[in-house]
This record gives sequence, structure tokens and C-alpha cells, in this order.
Amino acid sequence: MSSVNPSTHSAAILTIGNELLNGDVVNTNASWLGQTLRGFGVPCETVLTITDRKERIIRALEELWVDHDLVIISGGLGPTRDDVTKLALLDFFNDTLVRDTAVLEHVSQYFLQRGRAVSEVNRAQADVPARATVLFNDLGTAPGLLFEQEGRLLAAMPGVPYELHHITEKRLIPELEKRWKKSERRVLQRYYRTTGIGESDLSDRVLTELEHRIPPDVDIAFLPHPQGVDIRITQVNGRSGDAFLQFVEWISDTAGDFIYSEDYRQSLAARIVELLGDGNQTLALAESCSGGYLADALTDVPGSSRCFAGGVVAYSNDVKVRQLGVDPGILEAHGAVSAPVALAMAKGAAITLGTDFGISTTGVAGPSGGTPVKPVGTVWIGFWAADGAHFACRFHFTTERLVNKERSFAAAMDLLRRHVTGVPGFPYHPEVVRGTGTPFRDPD
Amino acid sequence: MSSVNPSTHSAAILTIGNELLNGDVVNTNASWLGQTLRGFGVPCETVLTITDRKERIIRALEELWVDHDLVIISGGLGPTRDDVTKLALLDFFNDTLVRDTAVLEHVSQYFLQRGRAVSEVNRAQADVPARATVLFNDLGTAPGLLFEQEGRLLAAMPGVPYELHHITEKRLIPELEKRWKKSERRVLQRYYRTTGIGESDLSDRVLTELEHRIPPDVDIAFLPHPQGVDIRITQVNGRSGDAFLQFVEWISDTAGDFIYSEDYRQSLAARIVELLGDGNQTLALAESCSGGYLADALTDVPGSSRCFAGGVVAYSNDVKVRQLGVDPGILEAHGAVSAPVALAMAKGAAITLGTDFGISTTGVAGPSGGTPVKPVGTVWIGFWAADGAHFACRFHFTTERLVNKERSFAAAMDLLRRHVTGVPGFPYHPEVVRGTGTPFRDPD
Repeated sequence: MSSVNPSTHSAAILTIGNELLNGDVVNTNASWLGQTLRGFGVPCETVLTITDRKERIIRALEELWVDHDLVIISGGLGPTRDDVTKLALLDFFNDTLVRDTAVLEHVSQYFLQRGRAVSEVNRAQADVPARATVLFNDLGTAPGLLFEQEGRLLAAMPGVPYELHHITEKRLIPELEKRWKKSERRVLQRYYRTTGIGESDLSDRVLTELEHRIPPDVDIAFLPHPQGVDIRITQVNGRSGDAFLQFVEWISDTAGDFIYSEDYRQSLAARIVELLGDGNQTLALAESCSGGYLADALTDVPGSSRCFAGGVVAYSNDVKVRQLGVDPGILEAHGAVSAPVALAMAKGAAITLGTDFGISTTGVAGPSGGTPVKPVGTVWIGFWAADGAHFACRFHFTTERLVNKERSFAAAMDLLRRHVTGVPGFPYHPEVVRGTGTPFRDPD
Repeated sequence: MSSVNPSTHSAAILTIGNELLNGDVVNTNASWLGQTLRGFGVPCETVLTITDRKERIIRALEELWVDHDLVIISGGLGPTRDDVTKLALLDFFNDTLVRDTAVLEHVSQYFLQRGRAVSEVNRAQADVPARATVLFNDLGTAPGLLFEQEGRLLAAMPGVPYELHHITEKRLIPELEKRWKKSERRVLQRYYRTTGIGESDLSDRVLTELEHRIPPDVDIAFLPHPQGVDIRITQVNGRSGDAFLQFVEWISDTAGDFIYSEDYRQSLAARIVELLGDGNQTLALAESCSGGYLADALTDVPGSSRCFAGGVVAYSNDVKVRQLGVDPGILEAHGAVSAPVALAMAKGAAITLGTDFGISTTGVAGPSGGTPVKPVGTVWIGFWAADGAHFACRFHFTTERLVNKERSFAAAMDLLRRHVTGVPGFPYHPEVVRGTGTPFRDPD
């Protein structure tokens, strides 16, 4: 059907606008289109962002059509004079404008319904290149445009995100499906979200074990983010789905209990809320150095009120004593950043709020406040469970305040996850202190 | 000093990584760099994102150096084998690797401090192209690299955002300043950060007043974000600095007390910490629907411990009673989302924690839990001050949980800002309820 080798379908995205170049707007259209294209089975290999000058757009189109058989343009289709994408397309395809009656009717209705007059500038939105297929825009006035030439496709879309999403899903994808068969764009993909292990340790562990068993056409990526590292395994246009499934099984075995979710959209907080909800268990927090980050992240999850009772942000020692019942003598003897205080805070939070679990953080978030013995990045996380577990772990994070808050969150949630799911592994071993006067469930 | 026409300095950004192409990661590095370059006075004109293949990187560099005299590469400098940027640079500049002793010492210390062995893969991070100037990375193991050729500059940076920010600000910008004089990159720019007014209201207010007084070459942008709207006024290569200064003065007068800062990097939280610090005043929080967002945002600011004592995340009614002393009778009579409860929470937080101010949030964050009388997005914010002010305001935000948390933060901080700075304006008027039994400072 297409003159292009079916196994080489690939896409480029061209986004146009100064607001993207100067950072006023983050290019979420590109990432949304990239995800959508991958889901469709045609990987995006280039994203280019340029200014809204006609000559620049034409040159970009010439470059992108060398390597890709689908180019998607976003932006510059509006009615104002800095919207020059349509003019560039006319030049590029040596085409002329015709007025589309369906679009004209839609544009007229659009303004009528909003009680506004239709100007000639607005009517001009219905002028489309004669060769283009109109990708009708139900949500706005600028239609999408699809060009086809020698088996290559070029789609131009408005830059307003919800209009772009709408036209892509309802108009463009169906047009692509008509032209490119499913067998030509097969993508198998699996995600494992891990936490408690660094990027290089995880890739060493996985790749050392499996180096010689990676099927051809399979790509493994290790994607670090503040809460852990995602493993993404992708096979594009692979012959054997079975080999892929066997391989991801091996990956899963190798990464083992570092994996907290197989759903790449599930955050660590969402996984914790799910786990606690499953067990009808409740959690209270006592946050010092994390300053509310843990509570904020947990309450981002809809339905978290079922398992999250609340917490105390104990930024001053006074609050640790008054709200959490921490013994002032312990604070004086060991300092706020210490195992005994972390233990007392975790227990205090759970007892005071009447929950199954209590978790605490106390540390030196930075940038100042560090000492040789307790440098910036030193964080004690305390854990208390109604079933008897009571321990604190020391971590050494970074010199960056915000990173230290994120890492405290990830480590605290991982301690809870490992306890609740009963996994035997415990990667935080060397610096664990048991709670005094309470039964200690050895975390290993 | 440079062979390039001073008035035409322009930059391109090359970001490398499949995670950007397939939408796993939104390209915030590009927008951050775009903002930083504009602030420096060298506009970014192209952003290109490509796969991490050596040949592709080399071709991209060849293309980008035609039009730009500064190219910044982000990503692909890590220690794993899919990090090929350094190899591409060696080919592109026909260069060889040398081991940098300072970087080697830093990398060794980095792992030593974390109690981990230094592998040969890690040591290889200290191998840098012989021609490159090392842009030292205090926060990670991959250094930045700066190349110079015929007046053109190429900087390669790691893709980890906080490392990229650090190296750009501390190493790259000073190197650029040495080479390109300020007069060659004249951009006059002023920011006003506002809160408490919507984008269209603000632009109507400013533009109606000033429409016929905008100098040529001056661009005004209204940039909405969750905490408010920024006004950015830019003049590129303008002749008259005086006209610009006169004009921004008018803008400042028109936007008036909606302006909370003139520093575009100062967050609303940082402004609050500054204001409270100036007055040696302290704050306590009682958060229900915002779930820790306010505390988290305030404690993101270094030095916030001076004015922020802490708070209670009172997600359950039980916590509101036990930790904040809210009368259970009030909860029963009015429900948790009510003015009396907001008033009691704010007062309870301040009294319990012994602070000058107490602020509370209680509302329906969504997505569920709304009723016809109290739909999703209904939020009461309570305010108590030791000087006698005690009131609560009702807001109607959105149906989006995370947006409602952000908006609660912005509104709460704006109430505090207006009180502390004594501004007469108060845009939250129609839905204010005075505290019972305490002197009421009329917010208007």
C-alpha cells in the first residue's frame, strides 16, 4: 500500500512557537504525541522546535522528510498573523487555498453560539490547501490538515493541547490506521517500576545476568526518576511475541522485589495507597526534614483518606515534643537528627493518631545545617508498626534540599511497602537501629 | 573577541534520549535552558530532540552549527553504554580522551562518601576530551564539557535536571560571560509576579490602561501558572532604556498590589518566608484538603525553619479534634468543610504551636466527595493572627484534585501576604466569615 518499507515507519514531530523556545511553555504536546505514536506502533525519532518563520518551517519540513515517513506539525494554524504554518505548507506542496464549506459552517456556528460576530479573519480558517484532507476540529476553529505524497504523510494540527488531542485521536489515528496495517507497526512493551536501587546497580544486575539472552529488536531502558528507576522493555516489529514474554519474565525475576509496580502510570504513592487499602491499614506521619512532602504526595492520590489519617510536620523541636510526645531528654541527649528521635517520632505519630503504622523523617535537608558527623543529606527514617516492628534507618542522600525530600519519601514508602508485602529483601541494612523496649522484627 | 557578528548570537538546544521522544519524560530541560538563555540575552532558536545514536548526534551537531553559535547538549553523558554523547563529541571534534585528575578525585570521593566501591565504569566518567574545558559537576559524577571552535561554543551537560541547572548557572554562564560582552546581548527584561487575579482580568486591566503607550520593540506576555500570573516585559536590542523603564513603572502601578515579587525565580513560598523572616514572625498550618501541600511548598525554601514551626495534616476529623482542639460539636453541627471548622483549625494550629499566625484549609479536593451544596473545589481557608485578625474565606476552585491543592496554597499565602504587608486591597471579599469571639480586623 505504501511505497515505504513497512518495517521502517517512523515519525517526526515539528513544534512551532517562540513560547516553546524561550521556555514560557513546556513542550507537553511533543511528549503527548510521542506517547500516542508509540502506542500506535510508530516510534517518534525526532522532535524539532523552531520559530514561526515561513522559510524556517519549509527548511525543517525538507529535512524531516528525508528520514521519516510521518511528520506531525503542531502550532501556527491559528487566525493571527504570526500563524504562518498554512502558508509554509502551501509553498512546500506548491498548493493553493480553497474554502471548505463544512469548516466554514462550523466556524460560523462556533462564533454564533458564543454570541460573537464572525470576522473575515475567522472565516479564513475555512480556507484549506486544495490537496489536503481536512481533519475536522470539533473543539476549535482551526482544522487539522493531512497531506500524502509518495507514501509519506504530513499532518498539521493546532497547538492548543485539547484540540490537538482530539484531532489526533478522532481524525488522524483513524486515517493512519486506514493506510498502515497493524502488522506493519507492532510494538510490544512492558514496564517495571523499581525503587530502593540505583540506576547503575540495577542495570548491572539485570544486564550481567541477561546480557546474552536479549532477543534481537528488543530495547531495554533504565529510566531514573526521583522515586526510583523504571525498566522499560520494548520490541518494535519483532517476530516472536513469545520470546518477548519469556524475556520480560526473566527481567522481572532479576529485578525481583525492587519492583513495586508494572503499571507505568502508577506512582509509588498510589501503590502505597493501594497496598494499605487492600489490607484495611492506616498510616500516620511525623515529618521533620521532609517538611510535608510525604503527606502531600500521599494525598495527591484520590481515595488516600481511606488509609492516611494525617500527620504532624514537626519542623521545630518544640512541635516534636508537644505534638508527638518525644521525650525532651532524648532530643537533648542525641539531637533531633538521630535514631532515638526518629523512633520516638514514628511511634508518637501512630499512637497519637491511632494508626497501624507510623513513619518519621528527621535529617539535615540542607543547603546549610550540616556538621562533619551529620552532613547535609543525613536522614533518619523511623518506622513503627502495631504488629511490633520498630526500627530506624539512616540514609545519606545528596546536598540538594529538594532531592533530599524526594529521596526521603521514596525510602520511607519503600520501607512500608517491604513491610506490608512481606518481601524478604531489605536493601537498607548497614544502618538500621532497633527500637528500644519494643519487639524488633528483624528487617532482614 | 568572537568572529561572529555580536548582534546575532543565537543558541540551539540538543536534547538526547528516547525517553523524551516517546513521551516518558517531558522535556523540561529544554524549557529551563530556553528561559536561562533568554535571561542571559542569547535567544534559543532551535530545540532538537533525537535518539541516542552516535551517527545521529554527529549529524545533528553539523546541522545546528550552521545557524547557531552556541549549542547546548543535554543528556547521554552518564556511565552506561547507551550514553554515547561523549563518543559522538570525540568524533565530531576529532579529539581523544584524557583522564582528568580533579574529576577522578571527585568521582572517587563521591562513591567513598556513599560507602560504595568505585567501578572502572565510574572512573571512566573522569575521561574527558582533551580539547574540552571541564565544567565541574559538584552534584554528580558526569562533568559538563565546553568546546570552542572559530568563535562558536558547544556545551555538553548531563541530563539530570538539578545537575544541569547547577553546571549551567555555576560553570557555563560564567564561561559565556567571559567570552560575550553584555553589550552584545542586550535584552531588557522585567518580571512582575502576581497572584489573586486571573490571566484575562490582569491583561484587561493592564492593556486597557496602557494600550497606546507600549513602546516599539517591547513585548508583554501574561504567563499563567498555578500560583498566579507573571507579567513579562521584554525589549530586545531596543534603543531607549529610559522608555522601557518608564513603561515597566506604569505596568507596576497598574498591576498594583497583585504583585508579590519582581524576581521571576522567587516563588510565592519564598516571598512568604522572606516576609515572615523580615518581621521575625512565625506560622503554623492546619491542613485538611491541601494534605501537606502548603507545608511542603514552604519547606522547599531554604531557611524556612526560621519562620515555619510546623503543622498538622488533619486528614481525618479525629485528628482535627485531637491535635488541633477543634470542638467535636462544631464538626457535627457544620461539617468539616465549613467556616467555623476552618476558623477553629487556624486558631488551634497557632495556639498549639505557639506561633504568630495560623492558617487552615478544609475543603472538597475531589475527584469525589462533592455535594450540591459543597461541590468539588469548595475550600474554606481559615486565618488567625496573634494581633487579633481571625477570619475564613470560601473559594470555589476546580474539579481537579491537584489544581485544588495548588490553588489552596496560592490563596492561603496571598491572605498572609496581604495581612503581613498591610496592603489595603482584598480580592476575596464576598465570602469572608469573621471569627467568633475574637476581634475582627476587617480585611478590606
